[in-house]
Amino acid sequence: MTNIDQAIRELKEFLVDRISTANSKLSLYGQNETYFEEMPPDAVVFPETTAEVAKIVSICARNKCPVVPWGVGTSLEGHSLAIRGGVTIDMCHMNKVLAVKQEDLLAVVQPGLTRKKLNNELRATGLFFPVDPGADATLGGMAATRASGTTAVRYGTMRENVIAMEVVLADGRTIRTGTQAKKSSAGYDLTKLFIGSEGTLGIITELTLILHGQPEAVAAGVCEFETVDSAVGAVISAIQMGIPMARIELIDQISIRAINAYSKLNYPEKPHLFMEFHGSNLGVKDQSIIMEQIIKEFGGGEFKWSVKPEERNRLWAARHEAYYATKAFFPGKLGMSTDVCVPISELANAITDTQADLERFGVTGAIVGHVGDGNFHTLMFSDRHDSEELERNKMIAHRMAERALAVGGTVTGEHGIGLGKMKYMAQEHGEALPLMVELKRTFDPNNIMNPGKMVNLN
Amino acid sequence: MTNIDQAIRELKEFLVDRISTANSKLSLYGQNETYFEEMPPDAVVFPETTAEVAKIVSICARNKCPVVPWGVGTSLEGHSLAIRGGVTIDMCHMNKVLAVKQEDLLAVVQPGLTRKKLNNELRATGLFFPVDPGADATLGGMAATRASGTTAVRYGTMRENVIAMEVVLADGRTIRTGTQAKKSSAGYDLTKLFIGSEGTLGIITELTLILHGQPEAVAAGVCEFETVDSAVGAVISAIQMGIPMARIELIDQISIRAINAYSKLNYPEKPHLFMEFHGSNLGVKDQSIIMEQIIKEFGGGEFKWSVKPEERNRLWAARHEAYYATKAFFPGKLGMSTDVCVPISELANAITDTQADLERFGVTGAIVGHVGDGNFHTLMFSDRHDSEELERNKMIAHRMAERALAVGGTVTGEHGIGLGKMKYMAQEHGEALPLMVELKRTFDPNNIMNPGKMVNLN
Repeated sequence: MTNIDQAIRELKEFLVDRISTANSKLSLYGQNETYFEEMPPDAVVFPETTAEVAKIVSICARNKCPVVPWGVGTSLEGHSLAIRGGVTIDMCHMNKVLAVKQEDLLAVVQPGLTRKKLNNELRATGLFFPVDPGADATLGGMAATRASGTTAVRYGTMRENVIAMEVVLADGRTIRTGTQAKKSSAGYDLTKLFIGSEGTLGIITELTLILHGQPEAVAAGVCEFETVDSAVGAVISAIQMGIPMARIELIDQISIRAINAYSKLNYPEKPHLFMEFHGSNLGVKDQSIIMEQIIKEFGGGEFKWSVKPEERNRLWAARHEAYYATKAFFPGKLGMSTDVCVPISELANAITDTQADLERFGVTGAIVGHVGDGNFHTLMFSDRHDSEELERNKMIAHRMAERALAVGGTVTGEHGIGLGKMKYMAQEHGEALPLMVELKRTFDPNNIMNPGKMVNLN
Repeated sequence: MTNIDQAIRELKEFLVDRISTANSKLSLYGQNETYFEEMPPDAVVFPETTAEVAKIVSICARNKCPVVPWGVGTSLEGHSLAIRGGVTIDMCHMNKVLAVKQEDLLAVVQPGLTRKKLNNELRATGLFFPVDPGADATLGGMAATRASGTTAVRYGTMRENVIAMEVVLADGRTIRTGTQAKKSSAGYDLTKLFIGSEGTLGIITELTLILHGQPEAVAAGVCEFETVDSAVGAVISAIQMGIPMARIELIDQISIRAINAYSKLNYPEKPHLFMEFHGSNLGVKDQSIIMEQIIKEFGGGEFKWSVKPEERNRLWAARHEAYYATKAFFPGKLGMSTDVCVPISELANAITDTQADLERFGVTGAIVGHVGDGNFHTLMFSDRHDSEELERNKMIAHRMAERALAVGGTVTGEHGIGLGKMKYMAQEHGEALPLMVELKRTFDPNNIMNPGKMVNLN
């Protein structure tokens, strides 16, 4: 039997002042970035070491008390909500860079460290960690969500950039997965199994990340297109030619309007590609020139590119602020961000179908996409007091997901399952879903690790 | 109770002439590329469809009869040997390219297709599949072994280049893992779990592979160094500068001597780096020139590079023939190829320690390495009738493995566990090994899938 109260009593004895059950505090951990209702845990704890995490989980295991890991709460599908109560483990004190191995291009970090803090600490080394989901998320949370973002087209997602982990299992055991070698054929790939498992198989307490050399030169460029179709055509062509783009982002008309207003810019109100090239001085010029030719072929507008940091930074600040810009464009509204990922040949259709849906159903929304990966987002807004508007937005998200599955895509490219997308697990995975359920039972027989997420054991 | 005879009776009824129990035939499937003794199965079957594989596995499951998948038998650690008898499934009839999705840079293939045949079929598309373990292995076998090879430094291993699979499970169920989208955050990463599982969790019956655009230009170069240390130093420097090398291979003095003799070449008998650059015409020139500067810094000899296909092909043919060249250099001997992978900062030491071991113990051996990944091989030879020589070679391999583990590396970068490296699983994985055992039990409770490999259930 679940005995949350007993677990909390034991945890209080163990952690003394590093546990809180104050309602005001718990309420913070019951909140989320989007439309889910507040679901606070019964307690929040603040461990400082792996051994403490292991002891916390052991206490919870003995009492069959739910355990929910917490980074900085930037997830978009309600991953970190304590829907069955229990104990939220805030990793904020485990936020150190434990080692930077410069020659090996590796960093060993704790899960509560955010990606921007890591990159600040790396600045002097000439190395950087490329995965960039926009938000300044924690690296543990990013791994647990299999996050990616604007640079995945060149550098891969968390899947490709985490090579080893320390994980606390559901019974309090601590294991290490992977090694510090770049590749290995030794045994089952547990690292990749924990990446994207959203805290349902274990709690990540340490990560070994792959770093990359800061490129000698960076060029960024921007270009408008008449249609989404022609923009995506240019992207496909660039990929097939093997141009190693570091970023290639589609911004739709409405996002451009919002960005213009928010960042005081004056891009034409048309679909745009925002691009970035990394390489040697000669290399990025070469890439930019080839890209210019491709853009011309696909009827794009003038391609403005620059290697000047201030111009690049302005461009990417604008892109990264798209979410907030769009939010500001629709003040006071409740935001919802959904994502799908499709084979790139299906991308233009998937986006134009979504645009058509937004118009048809009168939904206030904008689209941005990591188009090199076939991944795009729709940001939608609803009146906080109008549940019909929210339902309409969910319906649009549902239609996006259904269309993505119909063309061999996935219901989430990078946001994860959380609560919002559990309903699609059977449809996406078919006969493989029971195997995932068996996996979950093997790792967590009492279903205490972020229960009610990813797979349903009931 | 295991009932292999009953399984074979049922399989004969089902497959008629696509099953063999002739000793001459079985003996072929009991052989391997290296030093393991012949271990033939009780029968070999030749399915033509996934449904047939599923029925074969169902029959074997009912009779608790071992099932061992077979590609072309190029594995180097005895992976495909039927050590407990049973049925070997030769995938040779399932060797088709099912679809090439040019815009999506994907190919859907059957597991019995070899990588060279795939690349032949892709020639007209401008795309290619980059993973190149040297041998013309099957793509199913490569996935099951988590293979890589010379191009992994740029394009990744099978881990990064397989995004979806069809798999027949131990009870005969067929599942699909992954989607045709390039990335996904939906659910546990079963694809990555089957990659490298060596037939112990299920049988791969279809793979979706990531293709890459053939680069506009390819430049290859070669350069000698006075020491392994300086060669590896140049490699680390090139990686840190972000030069996107497509191949960077270390060939030691003895391998050079063997290659010279075998391929009628006249490289100086010193450690060499063989390199390849992929990109635009300008790009590869640029990369080659930067590399030239790095080589100079590290005291390397003259850097000869060329974009001419015939010169490139001669160079890589020489590299790929290193194994056979070295074998020919020691005629009549029994070959053994081992590999380890270490953090790149440890690579020079790992190689020089191994060279010292070879000399100290009077072992006939040569070293080649995928140095961009920290991965290297020692090829050793022994008299077929001198078990002491073989034991001495195993001792060298053992010392390599121990040293790799001591510096945070892995006992195998790309060859896999098979039989030869099972003894290191506990040492490499520690507390994570029991979890791998639990995983195996979950997927294969009766232990019929390539039993006795990867993890020991007894």
